[in-house]
Amino acid sequence: MQNFVLHNPTKIIFGAGRIPEIGPESRAFGRRALLVYGKESIKENGIFEMVTSSLEQQGMEIVLHGGVQSNPLLSHVRAGIAKAKEEHSEVIIAVGGGSVIDSAKAISAGALVTHDVWKFFTGKKSIKKCLPLTTVLTLAAAGSEMNGGMVLSHDEKKLKFGTGNKRLHPAVSILDPTATYSVSPAYTAYGAVDAIAHILEFYCTTSDAATPVQDRFMEGLVINIMESCDKVLAQPEDYQGRADLMWCATLALNGWTAAGLGLVGFPMHMIAHTLGALHNVPHGAGLSVVMPAWLNLQAQTSPHKYSQFARRVFQVEDTDPPRAAQEGIRRLQKWFAKTGSPTSLTELQIDPAEIPFLAEQSLPLAALWRLKEYNKEKIETILRGCA
Amino acid sequence: MQNFVLHNPTKIIFGAGRIPEIGPESRAFGRRALLVYGKESIKENGIFEMVTSSLEQQGMEIVLHGGVQSNPLLSHVRAGIAKAKEEHSEVIIAVGGGSVIDSAKAISAGALVTHDVWKFFTGKKSIKKCLPLTTVLTLAAAGSEMNGGMVLSHDEKKLKFGTGNKRLHPAVSILDPTATYSVSPAYTAYGAVDAIAHILEFYCTTSDAATPVQDRFMEGLVINIMESCDKVLAQPEDYQGRADLMWCATLALNGWTAAGLGLVGFPMHMIAHTLGALHNVPHGAGLSVVMPAWLNLQAQTSPHKYSQFARRVFQVEDTDPPRAAQEGIRRLQKWFAKTGSPTSLTELQIDPAEIPFLAEQSLPLAALWRLKEYNKEKIETILRGCA
Repeated sequence: MQNFVLHNPTKIIFGAGRIPEIGPESRAFGRRALLVYGKESIKENGIFEMVTSSLEQQGMEIVLHGGVQSNPLLSHVRAGIAKAKEEHSEVIIAVGGGSVIDSAKAISAGALVTHDVWKFFTGKKSIKKCLPLTTVLTLAAAGSEMNGGMVLSHDEKKLKFGTGNKRLHPAVSILDPTATYSVSPAYTAYGAVDAIAHILEFYCTTSDAATPVQDRFMEGLVINIMESCDKVLAQPEDYQGRADLMWCATLALNGWTAAGLGLVGFPMHMIAHTLGALHNVPHGAGLSVVMPAWLNLQAQTSPHKYSQFARRVFQVEDTDPPRAAQEGIRRLQKWFAKTGSPTSLTELQIDPAEIPFLAEQSLPLAALWRLKEYNKEKIETILRGCA
Repeated sequence: MQNFVLHNPTKIIFGAGRIPEIGPESRAFGRRALLVYGKESIKENGIFEMVTSSLEQQGMEIVLHGGVQSNPLLSHVRAGIAKAKEEHSEVIIAVGGGSVIDSAKAISAGALVTHDVWKFFTGKKSIKKCLPLTTVLTLAAAGSEMNGGMVLSHDEKKLKFGTGNKRLHPAVSILDPTATYSVSPAYTAYGAVDAIAHILEFYCTTSDAATPVQDRFMEGLVINIMESCDKVLAQPEDYQGRADLMWCATLALNGWTAAGLGLVGFPMHMIAHTLGALHNVPHGAGLSVVMPAWLNLQAQTSPHKYSQFARRVFQVEDTDPPRAAQEGIRRLQKWFAKTGSPTSLTELQIDPAEIPFLAEQSLPLAALWRLKEYNKEKIETILRGCA
């Protein structure tokens, strides 16, 4: 185990019927709120009404900032920052999935500075303070509801960058599994894939058997993400399934799995972000394409860790580590396909001829995230494994 | 999964060489510190010196309050509260294991009220505020370093009571595994037993398969506690073993395992506390005696959960749930014995004739903790299973 600091101050309020607590929880930080959300469809399932009436009961003034899209855009965040400044917002409230929460985080940081918010993403400025943020989660996927990370796409530059800061932790996040009942099968699966990717980026970072506690934790999460996703794809209103999937997705990226692992990187995310920025590929869909190829490459250098994964998660009994590792990855890929998540660039309708360009476009993020060994050649190799 | 609120604001600083950070971390809360610790032996292994010099470098005024004993006493806490009031302490610093941290918590709460601190333990008063608390952990066991619980023994009444409050969370806890190198084999094992008891009180609370995520997490912890304890009993300065054991003991009772389980109780602790209060039995030693008997009783009503435990933790292949459950519990008891932890009242030199009295003495805590089904008869049955 490596040395670490773990400090996750987000208060989680979990369960059916908890959404109306957003009013009192948010009011504790002020009266003037900027409410960030995505599509107008949120008004159909009753969540928007539940949130706004709870805020109004607390006498709060609400300024709306809807229209966040998947692969959220810098331009939309900039508009939100302008509103927050103009309206003197005291608290930012996000109602949505990772894209909405990430946009709200960027607004919460950007509202307190005079420079452009993109500078936080390029590392030219660091975040010193943020407006308090409360969230109501509607998608089990990103984990943003309980961490200090955020991802944003630059409209013109076609870059999707991410950054992290402890001040970006939401103060309070409400996780009501019933809020995810209406998530489509495709996005339910993409969310599960995203959570598995968060786990495996970390799981595969460490050398063999150096983090036995964390390994068990991560293996248990992967098993449960697959089991609960299978349940809710079969029966979208299976409460226990939605609850397990939601909580697993939060746990996958709230710092608990990574504590003690040392420096972790996000190479799969780097490549999936490129697919998102250039082709607007849903994040989870990009990851289910990239993951098997990346895992196969990684398994060549540390087959023991991958065979442990194959044995504990998929009960692969093969005692030959490289073969067991391959079999585990094959079964994971098979599970992605079973959920309807794509497993090849072809399925994403991306021409393999584009691979060198995709690799080239991944390099700025590789540099920013200090993924030193990820040169153009290596990224191309991975992408060719996805064809 | 049941609804829950999870909010654990303790900042963990983990790893070798981190103890000198206690100065700056504590200074952030004030300049006048009350330093709570246990035996004077802490001055032999260099930890005391490391802590005090770090505090002095920050220009802090230190008032010492040493002498906390295992099964910490109310009288000693009262003396600490008097000192904290007299010296206008701004921050309480605990250097030790669970007994020291619990005493420091009681002082941090008692220093800000005029009534007797014991009223917090009997439920007659509730904690509204506390002095900030920082800790340096020297024993992997209680989990107090990252939770809001505390346990204290009433000197005259021979009662050992525990209570919890979110305000009791330490602000910062430093976990340096090397600080546990000098822990004796017996207390290393007792600590491991204590952590396993924390997990199994919760694991066995839930009905079959209702908390699949938490189950995997808890099973992984039990496996790792046993593996790391075996390692450090063989080689006390095995850093990775000490690190894993320390982190597992913290995770066992920091709220993460219990989130979503619903109402959890501490029946094993209730009985072990009686053994501690009346016979000064070390906490872990009492638990390793009580645990198998309690588990066997519980397994009769939910054999499936216990057979899951037996299968996943001990690879018990028996497909008959009651038989598998029994075998799992037998193997756990065997492991306790292997570590040198006692597994019978006889080993504790407690006469079985005393069982009715022990059961009688457990009733006040059963009432306080609302363990309604634990009448005298049931507690006697469990204790007879320990003979």
